[in-house]
Amino acid sequence: MTTASHRLHGASIGEPGSRAALNTPALVLDLDAFEANVLAMAAWARERGVALRPHAKTHKSAHVARAQLAAGAVGLCCAKLGEAEALAAEGVTGLHITSPVVAAPAVARLAALHARAPDLSVVADHPTNIAALAAALPVGGPPLRVLVDVDPGIHRTGVASAEAALALARLISKRPSLSYAGVQFYCGVQQHIASYAERRAAIEDRTAFLSTVLRALADAGLPAPLVTGGGTGTHRIDADLGVLTELQVGSYVFMDREYGDCDLDGSGPGGAPFRTALAIDATVVSANTPGLATLDAGLKAFAADAGPPPILAGAAPGSRYRFMGDEHGLVMAPPGGSAPPLGARVSLAAPHCDPTVNLYDALHVVRGDALVDIWPVTARGRSA
Amino acid sequence: MTTASHRLHGASIGEPGSRAALNTPALVLDLDAFEANVLAMAAWARERGVALRPHAKTHKSAHVARAQLAAGAVGLCCAKLGEAEALAAEGVTGLHITSPVVAAPAVARLAALHARAPDLSVVADHPTNIAALAAALPVGGPPLRVLVDVDPGIHRTGVASAEAALALARLISKRPSLSYAGVQFYCGVQQHIASYAERRAAIEDRTAFLSTVLRALADAGLPAPLVTGGGTGTHRIDADLGVLTELQVGSYVFMDREYGDCDLDGSGPGGAPFRTALAIDATVVSANTPGLATLDAGLKAFAADAGPPPILAGAAPGSRYRFMGDEHGLVMAPPGGSAPPLGARVSLAAPHCDPTVNLYDALHVVRGDALVDIWPVTARGRSA
Repeated sequence: MTTASHRLHGASIGEPGSRAALNTPALVLDLDAFEANVLAMAAWARERGVALRPHAKTHKSAHVARAQLAAGAVGLCCAKLGEAEALAAEGVTGLHITSPVVAAPAVARLAALHARAPDLSVVADHPTNIAALAAALPVGGPPLRVLVDVDPGIHRTGVASAEAALALARLISKRPSLSYAGVQFYCGVQQHIASYAERRAAIEDRTAFLSTVLRALADAGLPAPLVTGGGTGTHRIDADLGVLTELQVGSYVFMDREYGDCDLDGSGPGGAPFRTALAIDATVVSANTPGLATLDAGLKAFAADAGPPPILAGAAPGSRYRFMGDEHGLVMAPPGGSAPPLGARVSLAAPHCDPTVNLYDALHVVRGDALVDIWPVTARGRSA
Repeated sequence: MTTASHRLHGASIGEPGSRAALNTPALVLDLDAFEANVLAMAAWARERGVALRPHAKTHKSAHVARAQLAAGAVGLCCAKLGEAEALAAEGVTGLHITSPVVAAPAVARLAALHARAPDLSVVADHPTNIAALAAALPVGGPPLRVLVDVDPGIHRTGVASAEAALALARLISKRPSLSYAGVQFYCGVQQHIASYAERRAAIEDRTAFLSTVLRALADAGLPAPLVTGGGTGTHRIDADLGVLTELQVGSYVFMDREYGDCDLDGSGPGGAPFRTALAIDATVVSANTPGLATLDAGLKAFAADAGPPPILAGAAPGSRYRFMGDEHGLVMAPPGGSAPPLGARVSLAAPHCDPTVNLYDALHVVRGDALVDIWPVTARGRSA
């Protein structure tokens, strides 16, 4: 274990050796499932000839990033500048920032990060931002790689038309301190459409729009060197359509309730071929009502945007979890069933992995019941 | 500023001096409103003759705890053992842990903390837990103060009857390594009833039950030395009823959307006499659609259990916020209105302060537009 692991460990996490001895609530990574997920996605992408730049907003972990790079990823995506700063400081390379960096103090930090990580790239969606980026970067050094962010229609970030994309690509290519690196197109809304066929139809429609943008760029002499986008929900469809050159898959490393409900490969719901690798272990701290047990894991242990966490182990089949405030949750046994007793361990899945992982300082890495390592959540809280 | 502040500052937070230069999203504390809130509650409690042991689960900050102690608080409540460990390490005294500490590794840590902080207290709600606590504490040292947790009827923690409370009080008082310190009775569900009259009726009903428990204890020769409970929502009602000897008020220091909707003192909705002291500052990072602006603050910047954050400043009156995933939110201008431009700052309130503060490493302390300090969120993430 690293020094950072030891520090986290000693501070609050628990004693080494056994999963059952962890202080709870604890974020637990099943190493067998995690390694299988990383290898399955890497092997599939290699076979399909598409590059992977997995999204670090899911895990925020230098250890996970290094495992993805070792399996062949070309780099890591970061949602925010702070995430990229934290991972670059741990030696992670090939970083791409998927949100525009706009505020003046952030643009200055971006220029400083680029000096340390010249292969960094970032998106932009506005001429004002391109001017600010160009002015912040020194002329004569390696240029900052900038991709045009294209809006798939959700009005979050990106330009809405081929004309606007072309105008931005021209602006980037005219600036000596910047280099035009391609296009980003992320269909966020479509990732969680449960039916494979419906998801495919939606992505075909959006990809037709992307293709018109790419044709306009190529016709103007500015073909996109990279076309990056996609996610765990659409990766197979994106590869079939063959327009994206690299995929920003994130959640496949951990899986969660949201993607577990999806048919990812046309084989039916269940998230196959990926397995649930992430759990939150909790302890029953009160058990005074028949059929109910109170866990030490509530709104500070699970992000609440995607409903309650499913129970993985430690409670009777059919038991359900209900949030009981910031610090607690209730296990409700099915009619006629028993709730787990005082002191029992209950293991739950993340409803939505990204914001849940962001609550924790460390991943407790287990093989079976043995705690084999503790990995810091390197960029935890680095939303700025 | 402290060394910890400087470290946080240098890592990701921004340059000193101006609120407008902070990296966003940033958690911002309005020092004038905060100081007014701390003083208003302290003066009111002094006048009413009730003790304050404010709840640190709201702020998790040693700086805030010290301000509350300086204003006359008898100590601080902690939801979890890890929170108490972190605050004790910063010299905060009078700590009371409001949830049962049950798991074997946690009981061992509790004993170690008690050796460093002999005025520590904790609740229990089960004979097995009392036996475990008694066995973990050395006989001959100062006893661990244990309060009987009484369930107000929500089935989260606590015993459900006067008989069960008396049985536990007897068990505690028989153990030489423990001392019977009183009763905890926390009406969590009732705190956010918006109407003062309805909240008062609910608390009168529950306090009648508490009084029967306290009478049974007194009749058996085990009168409760302390009776602790209450919150920001019910503090005036609790003081009127005169059964609780100390109040666990938390959110009043910051205020949030949930308590802002409440009539706290019978004067009408609005959270008076407390003011909104906590804000999340964000930046517009995309503005390509008329009437809409995308902020750099989403599900990792606000806990999502209490709906979207209200906008405090930086957008046209009538503008609303909508979550747009983990990293972003959308400002929607009212019909005919304009959204803020690219790069603009928008300030928002916390929908629910406790789990929102737990997302951040630091509070940025401002007077007006001047950044005057950075306070670490000392016990951030210490849910275990």
